[in-house]
Amino acid sequence: MFTVKTPEETFSVIEAEFRPFLPAETVSLSECCGRILAEDILSSEYVPGFTRSTVDGYAVKASDTFGCSDSIPALLTLSGEILMGEEASVPLTPGCCFAVPTGGAVPEGADAVVMIEYTENYGDGMIGIEKPASPGMNMIYKGDDLVPGKTVLPAGRRITVSDIGALASLGITRIPVRRRLLAGIISTGDELVPVEETPEGGQIRDVNTHMLDALCREMGMDTRLYGIVNDQAELLSAVLEKAIAECDLVLISGGSSVGARDAASAVIEKHGSILFHGIAMKPGKPTILGKAGNKPVFGLPGHPVAAFFITKLYVRHAAAVLTGADYAVRTTPAILTEALSTNHGRSETLGVRLSEQDGKLYAAPVHTKSGLISALAGTDGYITISRDCEGLPAGAAVNVSFYSVN
Amino acid sequence: MFTVKTPEETFSVIEAEFRPFLPAETVSLSECCGRILAEDILSSEYVPGFTRSTVDGYAVKASDTFGCSDSIPALLTLSGEILMGEEASVPLTPGCCFAVPTGGAVPEGADAVVMIEYTENYGDGMIGIEKPASPGMNMIYKGDDLVPGKTVLPAGRRITVSDIGALASLGITRIPVRRRLLAGIISTGDELVPVEETPEGGQIRDVNTHMLDALCREMGMDTRLYGIVNDQAELLSAVLEKAIAECDLVLISGGSSVGARDAASAVIEKHGSILFHGIAMKPGKPTILGKAGNKPVFGLPGHPVAAFFITKLYVRHAAAVLTGADYAVRTTPAILTEALSTNHGRSETLGVRLSEQDGKLYAAPVHTKSGLISALAGTDGYITISRDCEGLPAGAAVNVSFYSVN
Repeated sequence: MFTVKTPEETFSVIEAEFRPFLPAETVSLSECCGRILAEDILSSEYVPGFTRSTVDGYAVKASDTFGCSDSIPALLTLSGEILMGEEASVPLTPGCCFAVPTGGAVPEGADAVVMIEYTENYGDGMIGIEKPASPGMNMIYKGDDLVPGKTVLPAGRRITVSDIGALASLGITRIPVRRRLLAGIISTGDELVPVEETPEGGQIRDVNTHMLDALCREMGMDTRLYGIVNDQAELLSAVLEKAIAECDLVLISGGSSVGARDAASAVIEKHGSILFHGIAMKPGKPTILGKAGNKPVFGLPGHPVAAFFITKLYVRHAAAVLTGADYAVRTTPAILTEALSTNHGRSETLGVRLSEQDGKLYAAPVHTKSGLISALAGTDGYITISRDCEGLPAGAAVNVSFYSVN
Repeated sequence: MFTVKTPEETFSVIEAEFRPFLPAETVSLSECCGRILAEDILSSEYVPGFTRSTVDGYAVKASDTFGCSDSIPALLTLSGEILMGEEASVPLTPGCCFAVPTGGAVPEGADAVVMIEYTENYGDGMIGIEKPASPGMNMIYKGDDLVPGKTVLPAGRRITVSDIGALASLGITRIPVRRRLLAGIISTGDELVPVEETPEGGQIRDVNTHMLDALCREMGMDTRLYGIVNDQAELLSAVLEKAIAECDLVLISGGSSVGARDAASAVIEKHGSILFHGIAMKPGKPTILGKAGNKPVFGLPGHPVAAFFITKLYVRHAAAVLTGADYAVRTTPAILTEALSTNHGRSETLGVRLSEQDGKLYAAPVHTKSGLISALAGTDGYITISRDCEGLPAGAAVNVSFYSVN
């Protein structure tokens, strides 16, 4: 029997044993979405860079409009029109106004903009203001949003679309990010055949190569696929050695139970050290975590559902540690649709389908006794029942984690 | 003034006016993640294809083990060992057992597998069973998961990683998906300069080209960028004509307010029809939706935050209609950290930052009076306050939508 770690201990071991080691590289705005920032991004500018109007109207001194109304408009001299992309050539003087478009520069001396709807142009060089303005009205001041030196985005952040907007607005077009993690993926098992082939008696298709490839790429990694390797120690040893040399992180799926033909554990030990063998969770108990130099080597269970959840939970965490990335798992409360029985000392992770009824969100667990991945297809997220839990009744409040992270 | 649609009416107009028109194409397993299924995927096989063991142990007839215990084991004759990827050459006969590994084929005649931990191998061809088995124990039956003809994934589904697992397990390696939508992106505005340039008085950088490019690609589209076009009707008309001819959907940002120099509306009308001009929401009121043939043409506000939310909400919806895709916006309840004032008849959408404290989730709204995108950087999702709402107090329950969809 192997000694097992709890899920919490597994996260701690990963944090204690591994460190960020991926070098930084520079990418363009169109390449940076989803990448991990290697440095803090500071503003080098005022944003906005000039004081601007948020409406189409007239820039005024607010004090010139106090007390005016529909029936007694304030009469101001039109000093000119400010066009988009231009500045006023002269400051605003008392008793005067400038026409400004939405987004246009507000001239020096003005402290409010009156919307065009509340004005009348008499056509003789005079503008009637029919509603009083308060100072600051319909304006955005230079530096309202950012001033030089302010941190816009912290190192470790996974760059989002709105972050790209912020970078573009600052003119930051070369973005320092961590190199993508390269994950090596190996499937082991004498029973495996390539997915294109029809399995014969006792054989099954190699699901994990394709699923782990997609999963790692969805998590922002590049992948290198080493295909199916028989459960023979010499063969597996040669492929693992190559994968460790070429990649930043290696996933071997299959061959990690205590069964007679399982070679993964011995082979991982040969090329590094084993940090633990076994996590007290279901599915996924026979997971191995090894370390070769500074690189994690995961021995994942062959069952696709187990391999899926172990990768979602722990490989993702290792990848975050190696890249120095922050990530947050997004969750939502929901109501369990059926009772779930006890766990006998193992935490249990199950895929769920979400549905809304009468404004309430329900989570229907998908049972994967079988370990067959098609049961997971169509699920919206997952729940984890802690090892201390004695089971949950139908109607219990659960917290559903979504698959994608922010 | 323009007549405005409510957000609900906007969704309805999109659904009424547009139809899926993208042809199907076939892609490989490694290319299909995130693509929209063009047809239902049916199983053509039994999954699993054979009855298998979920543990390392001995395949038995459960009735041969009834009443056995540690002290009085049931003694069974070892008929052989079933290796991974192989089948038993003969059926199991009463009083006998076969050694089977995890995932191995269970021989005909067996109806349970006893874990190796509860057995003893006497080495003389006899196996002692120390715990009684119940029928079906530690087995998965042929077809438990899928039988031929069962729908595995419906047309319109956005393919996820676990779906790829299901497709691989069925040997489906050529996947029928909709062609990717090609979005044409045009920025208009005399005040815009390319992001690489330093704006001079009154100018601003063209944030929207880069942000909308990233946003459309994140939503699964391909993009074609037409750059910055001045607010002159003839120039814009020529570029829009080209974009409509080349793309499936066109986004023009800027130039959609009622300001004097705004040309987008007239130009969209020239190349098609305007379905509406204005949505009763903040930010984003001056949005235009036009139709050129069967293609949507969006006139987005120039303010990046407004363009961001209009694209998140309505361009996403139009893209789903054009590809026949299902999508679900994921949400979570949270507690508002500060009071929000009334909307004056417009629904309002605000980015929020989420934080957890004492097991409760709090949503801090990010005010974007400025329309400046850097305020959105670092937000985790958004809330929408309906037009009927008279404002919300601090501590109010809100529903936060995440940016990514499943």
